Amino acid sequence: MLLGRDRVIKVLRLNHRIARDARLTTHVGLISRAFGADEFILSGDEDRKLLSGLDKVTEQFGGPFETKYVKQWKPFVNKEKKNCKVVHLTAYGSQLQDVIKDIRKEKNLIVVIGSAKVPPAAYEVADWNVSVTNQPHSEAGALAVFLHEYFQGKELTKEFKKSKKKIIPQAKGKRVISS
Amino acid sequence: MLLGRDRVIKVLRLNHRIARDARLTTHVGLISRAFGADEFILSGDEDRKLLSGLDKVTEQFGGPFETKYVKQWKPFVNKEKKNCKVVHLTAYGSQLQDVIKDIRKEKNLIVVIGSAKVPPAAYEVADWNVSVTNQPHSEAGALAVFLHEYFQGKELTKEFKKSKKKIIPQAKGKRVISS
Repeated sequence: MLLGRDRVIKVLRLNHRIARDARLTTHVGLISRAFGADEFILSGDEDRKLLSGLDKVTEQFGGPFETKYVKQWKPFVNKEKKNCKVVHLTAYGSQLQDVIKDIRKEKNLIVVIGSAKVPPAAYEVADWNVSVTNQPHSEAGALAVFLHEYFQGKELTKEFKKSKKKIIPQAKGKRVISS
Repeated sequence: MLLGRDRVIKVLRLNHRIARDARLTTHVGLISRAFGADEFILSGDEDRKLLSGLDKVTEQFGGPFETKYVKQWKPFVNKEKKNCKVVHLTAYGSQLQDVIKDIRKEKNLIVVIGSAKVPPAAYEVADWNVSVTNQPHSEAGALAVFLHEYFQGKELTKEFKKSKKKIIPQAKGKRVISS
């Protein structure tokens, strides 16, 4: 289903822990979809409920947006690297503003988002370790701003397909239409 | 401590629930600091641990960045409105790209970030209800991109003062210096 598109951007969440990370990883998944990524890959604990929650959002608000679980992230990334570049978001990496122009030249990316302890292998496998500010903050915030910069704001007006519901922007109040 | 600056941007988190929101609200606080806000105000459950955690990050990585708790957010916002405009981030609001130029003209802002159920009063008190995409996603992602757009990327190179530690950007690995 991902074939034939101009760009394919995947987001890989490392080391998910159901008990601790469920809500934050859900936000990372929702940000991936809302900001124009094509696929969300979960690694760490297998969390079917989380992935089916994301799939339900896609059913309601449109896609395409795929989700899947991989037990072993390293072989997955090594296989994918034949067709894409790897960006690892970390407060320690090269500054976004210095590398984004080069990254934008790449049409296929995996964006790797750590959780608690990021293994050194994630730094090693990355074509770019990228910092969105060099301050401690949030993988959710880093991912949103990274995708926003990568797509140069075009993701803000992305048309989602096969949606059942659509939010219509309003200065006040809420308006949702069925489509 | 906030007087005399060119702009004063405050972030108000509504309806915080300790049991459910601690981690996500922490991320919202860290994003506020990292992306250039001056102050983080918590409402809902009083969560001293969360605020002191944010203060510790400021002690280590610099500021200025204030935190505080307000029990009643409405009187707080009504009082602040004498000196600032109010932006409420919501998937239902006017699109970021349509309103950001006008918002940037304002030097003092409160950015209101909802939690579970946002009371209608938050929509009413806002000078702008702003959507960062009209998709369901994450208040953390919305806040990061809003601040990034408001500051036009200048927050990425903000110099924090009185820091004890500083992360030095690296293509690979981690480097932190004591300052």
